[in-house]
Amino acid sequence: MERYQRLIGERVDAWCAALPEGGLHAPMAYLLRLPAKRVRPALVLMGCELFGGRAEDALDEALGIELFHNFSLMHDDIMDAAPLRRGLPTVHEKWDVNAAILSGDAMLVKAYQLMGKRADVLEIFGRTALEVCEGQQLDMDFERRDDVRVDECLEMLRLKTAVLLACALRTGAMVAGADSGDQDHVTALGERLGLAFQLRDDLLDAFGDPARTGKQRGGDLRAGKKTYLLIRGLELAVSIGDIGLRGELEKDPADRDVPRMLELLEQLGARAEAERLVEEHHRMALAMLGAIDAPQECKAPLAALAARLMERVA
Amino acid sequence: MERYQRLIGERVDAWCAALPEGGLHAPMAYLLRLPAKRVRPALVLMGCELFGGRAEDALDEALGIELFHNFSLMHDDIMDAAPLRRGLPTVHEKWDVNAAILSGDAMLVKAYQLMGKRADVLEIFGRTALEVCEGQQLDMDFERRDDVRVDECLEMLRLKTAVLLACALRTGAMVAGADSGDQDHVTALGERLGLAFQLRDDLLDAFGDPARTGKQRGGDLRAGKKTYLLIRGLELAVSIGDIGLRGELEKDPADRDVPRMLELLEQLGARAEAERLVEEHHRMALAMLGAIDAPQECKAPLAALAARLMERVA
Repeated sequence: MERYQRLIGERVDAWCAALPEGGLHAPMAYLLRLPAKRVRPALVLMGCELFGGRAEDALDEALGIELFHNFSLMHDDIMDAAPLRRGLPTVHEKWDVNAAILSGDAMLVKAYQLMGKRADVLEIFGRTALEVCEGQQLDMDFERRDDVRVDECLEMLRLKTAVLLACALRTGAMVAGADSGDQDHVTALGERLGLAFQLRDDLLDAFGDPARTGKQRGGDLRAGKKTYLLIRGLELAVSIGDIGLRGELEKDPADRDVPRMLELLEQLGARAEAERLVEEHHRMALAMLGAIDAPQECKAPLAALAARLMERVA
Repeated sequence: MERYQRLIGERVDAWCAALPEGGLHAPMAYLLRLPAKRVRPALVLMGCELFGGRAEDALDEALGIELFHNFSLMHDDIMDAAPLRRGLPTVHEKWDVNAAILSGDAMLVKAYQLMGKRADVLEIFGRTALEVCEGQQLDMDFERRDDVRVDECLEMLRLKTAVLLACALRTGAMVAGADSGDQDHVTALGERLGLAFQLRDDLLDAFGDPARTGKQRGGDLRAGKKTYLLIRGLELAVSIGDIGLRGELEKDPADRDVPRMLELLEQLGARAEAERLVEEHHRMALAMLGAIDAPQECKAPLAALAARLMERVA
């Protein structure tokens, strides 16, 4: 992972350094240079090496995926009225909403310039970009609804997070010349990994160690965010006639008893179900990796990343 | 022009009708269905027929250009806090800012899906899309500056308006298989036409007949918008030591004496210069059309459109 991060870091730095002066570009460089794990571009490089390609040959596409991811962060942060991103002011806070809209638009165009070198990559990228927009739309729709079902919640996660991880892996595989069967395998693998990743994130927000996550425990619950954990908890509560969780949600966010909500989610079994779901997606991802016809040493980085995503505590 | 408008209208209608239900798509259909002249997609079809292609073969690209144009309208209207577009509520007014951001993003992705069928079109489209963003950035920068020069003002108009008209013509030429020399000719022609078009627009805002334009006379002047007319007027005023125009600008918008500003622009010669500039760009556009090696009947629609853009009173 360190080698991938170094390769991506150098490419990102060079790209930012080459940006022209001016209001349109400064927000792009600012957001791209915030500390980041670079999971998505690393997946492009891993997908490429998995099928015998050279990571260096997929660096344009890796950067393209990272630009797209940062475009979506810039616009999502406006929509979510988020003041902070990775502990620092979001673009619309540091500049203004107009700068964040326009700079995000230009970053999407620049992502396309990197993803448009190959017709097959371009096609999958466009489809994925639309799905990510649909996922964000569902996420916003959920805010106004109190009847979100678990299947809808998982579909939202798939669209908003998982398809981009899948697209990253597939893009790398395409650059390496993998056949369509192998491309489909890594796509499915990426979706599983993405779902596990996002469900794990939601679990950490609720039950993680605040000293290590750097976030207040249960921030999503206080905000009433429709995570799988909460939605499943509400379903389980209905099935046994418990109204405690729903009662907390009907309060103003500041009045919610978050420790009690956490306890209820634990007692109802929602936490255990979410953890089982994470493990199941993780296991399926590894099974798919196992089924791919590639040398073991080419699979190792991806297996290590999957393990790391599962074991993380922050 | 009527034939082009019918072809485009049918394609736009079919596209809108095929959109899935849901919050992401309704704003796209709403904006696309507002009454519009469809100048940009018509230029794609004209550029194609100019070089012996069939208009029907460039309909995807014509729609792509129209989607891109509507994406930029949707986002620009947020940035300009515009309540109305073509006399009806803008998307961010009818829905909200978040819907306008996200639906615009998805419309840009959909534009790319139509423009990405040919590598040469994709490349020119990406470059143009970035220029349009840069033009909007300059336009916003100008709001905070009181030292905008005439050359900067014309460069802003070129980027914000003219390059997309040029891209539309060139895209059509590419679909028809025109060689790169001819492509360059229509690009230059499109830029001239676009500049003439936008300068004419600014003149109509100031000196047009409100009964025909449907807008209050001098709305741009009241708002202090940095049009060529105003910037050139300020330059001419400085050169003769007149402080009347600058004095009006220093007032609150509601207190500005717009009829006096119009009179000053007339007396200073700014109106006459703007009109000369429109005519010069128009003349150069026609000269370029004349220099293109194509049958006269293929040039006629483009010449007619140019004439129509010049003669319009609204």
